[in-house]
Amino acid sequence: MPSVSARAQKMPSSPIRRLVEFALKAESRGVHVHYLNIGQPDIFSPPAFWEAVKHAEIPTLEYSHSAGIHSLRVAMAADYQKKGIPVEESEVMVTTGGSEATLFAFLACLDPGDEVVCVEPFYANYAGFAEIAQVRLIPVTTYLDQDFALPTVAELESKITGKTKAILLCNPSNPTGSVFSPDALLALAEIARSRDLFLIVDEVYRDFYYGDGELLSVLQIPGLERNAVMLDSASKKFSLCGARIGFLVTKNREILTAGLKFGQARLASPTLDQIGVTACLKKTPPSYFEAVRREYMARRDLLRSRLLKMPGVRCPRIEGAFYAVVRLPVDDADRFAEWMVSEFSFKGETVLVAPCSGFYITPRRGADEVRIAYVLDQDRLGRAMDCLEAALLAYPGALVPDAVAAGR
Amino acid sequence: MPSVSARAQKMPSSPIRRLVEFALKAESRGVHVHYLNIGQPDIFSPPAFWEAVKHAEIPTLEYSHSAGIHSLRVAMAADYQKKGIPVEESEVMVTTGGSEATLFAFLACLDPGDEVVCVEPFYANYAGFAEIAQVRLIPVTTYLDQDFALPTVAELESKITGKTKAILLCNPSNPTGSVFSPDALLALAEIARSRDLFLIVDEVYRDFYYGDGELLSVLQIPGLERNAVMLDSASKKFSLCGARIGFLVTKNREILTAGLKFGQARLASPTLDQIGVTACLKKTPPSYFEAVRREYMARRDLLRSRLLKMPGVRCPRIEGAFYAVVRLPVDDADRFAEWMVSEFSFKGETVLVAPCSGFYITPRRGADEVRIAYVLDQDRLGRAMDCLEAALLAYPGALVPDAVAAGR
Repeated sequence: MPSVSARAQKMPSSPIRRLVEFALKAESRGVHVHYLNIGQPDIFSPPAFWEAVKHAEIPTLEYSHSAGIHSLRVAMAADYQKKGIPVEESEVMVTTGGSEATLFAFLACLDPGDEVVCVEPFYANYAGFAEIAQVRLIPVTTYLDQDFALPTVAELESKITGKTKAILLCNPSNPTGSVFSPDALLALAEIARSRDLFLIVDEVYRDFYYGDGELLSVLQIPGLERNAVMLDSASKKFSLCGARIGFLVTKNREILTAGLKFGQARLASPTLDQIGVTACLKKTPPSYFEAVRREYMARRDLLRSRLLKMPGVRCPRIEGAFYAVVRLPVDDADRFAEWMVSEFSFKGETVLVAPCSGFYITPRRGADEVRIAYVLDQDRLGRAMDCLEAALLAYPGALVPDAVAAGR
Repeated sequence: MPSVSARAQKMPSSPIRRLVEFALKAESRGVHVHYLNIGQPDIFSPPAFWEAVKHAEIPTLEYSHSAGIHSLRVAMAADYQKKGIPVEESEVMVTTGGSEATLFAFLACLDPGDEVVCVEPFYANYAGFAEIAQVRLIPVTTYLDQDFALPTVAELESKITGKTKAILLCNPSNPTGSVFSPDALLALAEIARSRDLFLIVDEVYRDFYYGDGELLSVLQIPGLERNAVMLDSASKKFSLCGARIGFLVTKNREILTAGLKFGQARLASPTLDQIGVTACLKKTPPSYFEAVRREYMARRDLLRSRLLKMPGVRCPRIEGAFYAVVRLPVDDADRFAEWMVSEFSFKGETVLVAPCSGFYITPRRGADEVRIAYVLDQDRLGRAMDCLEAALLAYPGALVPDAVAAGR
């Protein structure tokens, strides 16, 4: 009997989706589950998407160009320019979700055995794409107690070897919600430039920034044109996760040429979704984004104020995206998260969160942390916090306050 | 300055799409181009797709399950069962096009350096997926003069080494239009079983079979449950190439588990397209497929009768799909195909075909062959044949009849 590949066996399960089966079983027992495990917002998709899709008079739904439909590339470039990010239409490749943009960036920049220095905790699926591309993620750790700020230049440089080909980060950060300062990014860019490394930045959460200072895109850094690769997506921007439209953006022509070849192999991204996203870019008023941002800021404030009142819980500053990496006073966050959906309920409800061990490579890191996606409205988010608070009191593996204090 | 990966440089350009830029330039000169290079049919997508999409009342377009929406998996399994192919819902994984099904099959079955014995000429993008997965395609050649029949068992076995992990073929075949006989497939299956190899069969063109005998699916072969992996797609079946919905189907649980992990990394396939394809499966009457099949048979007959009248042109028997691999009396089919769209026109029109060199691995194989996709209506297909006929007379590198005879 033939056996599956070693890479299939090594391929990680998604820490975000692994516990979903337990949650579905809880639902079948009549327990209402608040899903805070996944970045699936409840925000309505823009009406422009549905109008464009419903009125697309296409008798045959054909393949599109492998780099995406022209009007979408033009509209996306215009959107960047409006934000002060200098991007031309030819520098935007449409991909099937930000996921594919990540995979294509890995494939274009890296060969098997190459190393990518990656800020941890990181978006867990980077580890999956690394396994597919057969490259090594080399972690440089950021810490909850430092609000997940970027490491020092010395720390970053200590991770670079002869095999390092790229540095990868997400800004604003999934999973931590931190936003890296322009100064920290410029220092990082200088490392990339002087060491001839690609700097791959996942900027999927650009529209979810709640700070006052400047949010610097990697494509705004002067002199970094050959090194900078930006990953983007329509999923969060327009609450269109199911549309599977992303973007690989760079001024490096070799990467674009490579991306097109990878793109030709898979033919095209979904045509109808591209048409819908084009309409969103053209027709969604600034008021949509302002309302969404206000809503997320209110949710963030609710989340933090509730978490900070729970004994032994630590929640860092959150400046962007819609996630928080939170420390819980438990023996093991994987066990606790599974217990919440398999054995616990509070007033007929419970909550699913993503344990953080899968967001780190360094062993045991994140063992007492969970990622919370604040993607539900304030009423439901409040009820989810009620569940979490009650769960921490009821959980058999909860650390007593003294142990918490001793452990810190 | 950082340079792109070796695999990006080795990644082949699509021989199907490489000449599209030349064709677009021809159009900008006012020349009408008949696109016979790509399997993009002009058949209307089923009304059920548009109805389902237009009436999908979804305020937020969310991610779907990483293995696909349940109703689509159920509908697809029912479709297989109706055709006598024993498949359960849990054995169907929805993928983003047949392209992703191919990639996931490669990743699940093969490690870098592993070998796949592959019947050539093959669907050119297999070479791209092999480069992404870092595996080697080992060709076993089929011949136009033998109507591209499967090679003998001895020939196939001679290609198998200690590194061989799978055999890959497409049935009905893209690019040749040949259909492999049940006996030939059973002999191949016996090799796979006795040698512990996966047998990966791309059955995307199942609904385009014009013969009288049985069309055997790899999933119908008794005792091959652990070895058989089937690739499928909605693109051709429902003329929904732009919908990007495919299927990875197998009874091997390890492959399904691996497929789900690869699927979780990319989150999900397009939600709206899945809803539309589900409706197509439930509501498209058999008369749709009968009409489509009749239309393609008429096109095939037109194509063959025209080609067989052109001096020096060879066209094999075609029993399925909507392609033909045709030998032309030219010095070099790549040059000829490019010349047709860059320098030639006939009555203001020309034709784009796919040169076959990219469909072979064996050097020089296919140098005088092109793939023709008969995806246009009979009027346009006839005009395209007028162009081809005139081009063969005008082309500076045309072989004179004596040279053709000597070369055969």
